[in-house]
Amino acid sequence: MADQAAEGPYTHTGYSDATSVRVRGKDLVNELVGHCSFTEMLYFLTCGRMPQAGQVRVLDACLVTLMEHGLTPSAVIARLMADSVPEEPQVAVASGLLAIGSVFAGTTENCARLLLEIEAAAPAEGLEQAMETRVGQLRSQRLPVPGFGHATHKPDDPRTPRLLQVAREAGLAGRYVALLEQLSAVVDRVYGRHLTINATGAMGALFLEIGIPIEAMRCYSVVSRAGGLVGHLLEERAVPSARKIWQMSKQVAPYREPPESA
Amino acid sequence: MADQAAEGPYTHTGYSDATSVRVRGKDLVNELVGHCSFTEMLYFLTCGRMPQAGQVRVLDACLVTLMEHGLTPSAVIARLMADSVPEEPQVAVASGLLAIGSVFAGTTENCARLLLEIEAAAPAEGLEQAMETRVGQLRSQRLPVPGFGHATHKPDDPRTPRLLQVAREAGLAGRYVALLEQLSAVVDRVYGRHLTINATGAMGALFLEIGIPIEAMRCYSVVSRAGGLVGHLLEERAVPSARKIWQMSKQVAPYREPPESA
Amino acid sequence: MADQAAEGPYTHTGYSDATSVRVRGKDLVNELVGHCSFTEMLYFLTCGRMPQAGQVRVLDACLVTLMEHGLTPSAVIARLMADSVPEEPQVAVASGLLAIGSVFAGTTENCARLLLEIEAAAPAEGLEQAMETRVGQLRSQRLPVPGFGHATHKPDDPRTPRLLQVAREAGLAGRYVALLEQLSAVVDRVYGRHLTINATGAMGALFLEIGIPIEAMRCYSVVSRAGGLVGHLLEERAVPSARKIWQMSKQVAPYREPPESA
Amino acid sequence: MADQAAEGPYTHTGYSDATSVRVRGKDLVNELVGHCSFTEMLYFLTCGRMPQAGQVRVLDACLVTLMEHGLTPSAVIARLMADSVPEEPQVAVASGLLAIGSVFAGTTENCARLLLEIEAAAPAEGLEQAMETRVGQLRSQRLPVPGFGHATHKPDDPRTPRLLQVAREAGLAGRYVALLEQLSAVVDRVYGRHLTINATGAMGALFLEIGIPIEAMRCYSVVSRAGGLVGHLLEERAVPSARKIWQMSKQVAPYREPPESA
Repeated sequence: MADQAAEGPYTHTGYSDATSVRVRGKDLVNELVGHCSFTEMLYFLTCGRMPQAGQVRVLDACLVTLMEHGLTPSAVIARLMADSVPEEPQVAVASGLLAIGSVFAGTTENCARLLLEIEAAAPAEGLEQAMETRVGQLRSQRLPVPGFGHATHKPDDPRTPRLLQVAREAGLAGRYVALLEQLSAVVDRVYGRHLTINATGAMGALFLEIGIPIEAMRCYSVVSRAGGLVGHLLEERAVPSARKIWQMSKQVAPYREPPESA
Repeated sequence: MADQAAEGPYTHTGYSDATSVRVRGKDLVNELVGHCSFTEMLYFLTCGRMPQAGQVRVLDACLVTLMEHGLTPSAVIARLMADSVPEEPQVAVASGLLAIGSVFAGTTENCARLLLEIEAAAPAEGLEQAMETRVGQLRSQRLPVPGFGHATHKPDDPRTPRLLQVAREAGLAGRYVALLEQLSAVVDRVYGRHLTINATGAMGALFLEIGIPIEAMRCYSVVSRAGGLVGHLLEERAVPSARKIWQMSKQVAPYREPPESA
Repeated sequence: MADQAAEGPYTHTGYSDATSVRVRGKDLVNELVGHCSFTEMLYFLTCGRMPQAGQVRVLDACLVTLMEHGLTPSAVIARLMADSVPEEPQVAVASGLLAIGSVFAGTTENCARLLLEIEAAAPAEGLEQAMETRVGQLRSQRLPVPGFGHATHKPDDPRTPRLLQVAREAGLAGRYVALLEQLSAVVDRVYGRHLTINATGAMGALFLEIGIPIEAMRCYSVVSRAGGLVGHLLEERAVPSARKIWQMSKQVAPYREPPESA
Repeated sequence: MADQAAEGPYTHTGYSDATSVRVRGKDLVNELVGHCSFTEMLYFLTCGRMPQAGQVRVLDACLVTLMEHGLTPSAVIARLMADSVPEEPQVAVASGLLAIGSVFAGTTENCARLLLEIEAAAPAEGLEQAMETRVGQLRSQRLPVPGFGHATHKPDDPRTPRLLQVAREAGLAGRYVALLEQLSAVVDRVYGRHLTINATGAMGALFLEIGIPIEAMRCYSVVSRAGGLVGHLLEERAVPSARKIWQMSKQVAPYREPPESA
């Protein structure tokens, strides 16, 4: 078995037998339950080590920031689903989470990737130049700069300074926060107007500061939003809105005979 | 608008404008981010009030307990999905969460319902009798007693005493924990053998102790497991197992010509 | 292997090797592709035998009837998802299909179950009495009679007579259609007013006539609606409505400060 | 309304009132139910016109080809989900469909895009050169040529000649089939060995021949596979395999203590 496992796949994640549960080398019952919070366990499961106190504060701030943002598309989808499949609340939560994709959450990881790319290019190109080149490319391709601009929050996303403040208080506003703030100045100069650093942009930098793998970043948004959707589902039971949203959607997009049938 | 909202649906959950985000009557930026943990925010969003310290400890213990239990069906599904749709990690997480249904997580809410039912019936029927009647019915219908028994953990689920200990330390092992322990004695007597109180049974009692609405209980399992699945997805990228699981499944269920074609 | 397969699980469904694909005892390439339609293959895969011409006509009529019904909740969900996850159209289709549950499609199988229950009880209770008892129970419990009544189509669902006509033309309006029509008279008498036989009610009877297993009935609605959702997704790309539906939903359920924060 | 609809979004897809259902300018009851098959309706809903007989034959052949291919990842996921959420079959179907992504079905649309790209480049670059350039680029980037090669079917995918034969018999093996066959020769020459045209490659060409929009191609695979999954779900109820697949997956990826805990 050991040999076969040595070659083939294996898991470090978890295992249970008659009397114990192992999770990444720890005893779940005696070393984790009652000893760590959900947030610490999430970090442990994804990073393979327990976070320090400051990292926990920053991660909690990020998770709390993304949890709830009103009637987002994922909340609307979850409420419509709760009305259609009332017996299985996990279906409503999961369907809302499917919408946490490139459009509404991918920017966190994309902003983090941009900062890493700039950091890697700086020695050769020079920091300012590395930023200007990339921002210029995005602008000329009419692509958004990941982590910048917001449809609702103008001129500035109020969540961003708060997130950066929490990181500073935790002593974790390091080189990625510095890079993000320098990038912000370049973005404003290249665009000739102010584009706010949005909350997902700030989170991209903070996740790098606390050592979250890029691949986990969108998943963290998903976990955070899962919590927020529970609130929407409970409220939907008490104050139903799904049927009215559905009826209204027929007025938003009324039926029209197609030309070929005119 | 106010009038229309007075009759029609509304939301207390969240709202954002150019310069602020409101969440259930609080200012997200100034009152929540940096002030509360993910776990406190989850409680706040679902219960409408901030939890006390002891309630947070108990809730964290429950969330940590359910987060990870090795290669569960939801973990296997999430890993297979990650291999099929590598670009969209939220699809893998969401598909794993769809499996958190009546079979693998519903027992928490069902155990809580049973305890409430017994509590309501006790004054009229007498506590012992109320328990014996219901356990007897379940047994005669060959139905499981929600919250009792476990396929792997024998003779006892090691997570249960730890969860109850955390509740005692937090001063929150009240009447529902007492009911669960009395019920356990009745279950063993009626079945003529020992059935362990499993972790979801203990959580059903603890969720009642800390004031979680029944409707939120399965959703809490979903949120907790969402965190656990992130760990599986990161590991799947580093140590792929999906392809081997898929190939193996063809050996588990080999093709056989149907009789009509023989 | 044969022995192990004899005990353990196996599949009759499908298998492929280097040069051929077997499906339920047939050669996919030489016996199915080009020889049968999607509808015949669906019947074959679920019933284990090829349908007769009349059964195909009835099944096609049922599938065509359910495919498209305007902006249903599943169509709205699929359109919102297509806007959030534009890269993966299967996510939009699948999320719309998750909503084909007890509320919007379960009635087909529930109506079929009711007809079978009445058929089984008739010898002992008498047919009229068996119908009156069950309809009376549903009414006294304020439950809908599965397959009867419609929110939009009044006084009668225009799809029902057409579906029954197709069955008659195919010589397949047998005892289940007769039972449904007798049941309709009982329903009107018990309720003291006319409740239309709706399309899912008619389909419940027709699926029984053509030998569809009860367990497959909701799945057939899912397959049919999957086709309908493709049309919505293509239209959503050409004439986007998701963003407006989302914005409008915020007006349908405006934010209100919760009382505790007043 | 007309004005508002003129600017704002609208739908040509469907609409129902008390006595009728309109679908893309036709009366569902009198013009579609009983008059067209599922396959014709699918084409009508996605292309906006009714298909000709030959187009229906080709489309049915493509849909039948993709419906069933044994225990694919989507079938395994659907079976595991059916075991976890037995009450809601649409959840099992939908979760299986989520896996119809870039890895296992995207090749149809990618092969179609490649053919269109070559067709567009041919006048300027010359046909042979246009093919060699693109195949050479893919090879040098170690990317697969969409529509070519197959893990199981060697040396040739048996479904491909059958699909092309059906198209020839229908008089629909036109310029895209010709392009695909010329491309096949170039692929073999550039790679210095024979790579089969696989079924999704053949379907990419056939979908172009019958006028299916590129954006609909993956969705057609989803619809087709939805039918196939129904067969798996019914079989899973009769001959359960999910529990054994789950148990076996723990042996495929056994737990190992992570190094840091050694």
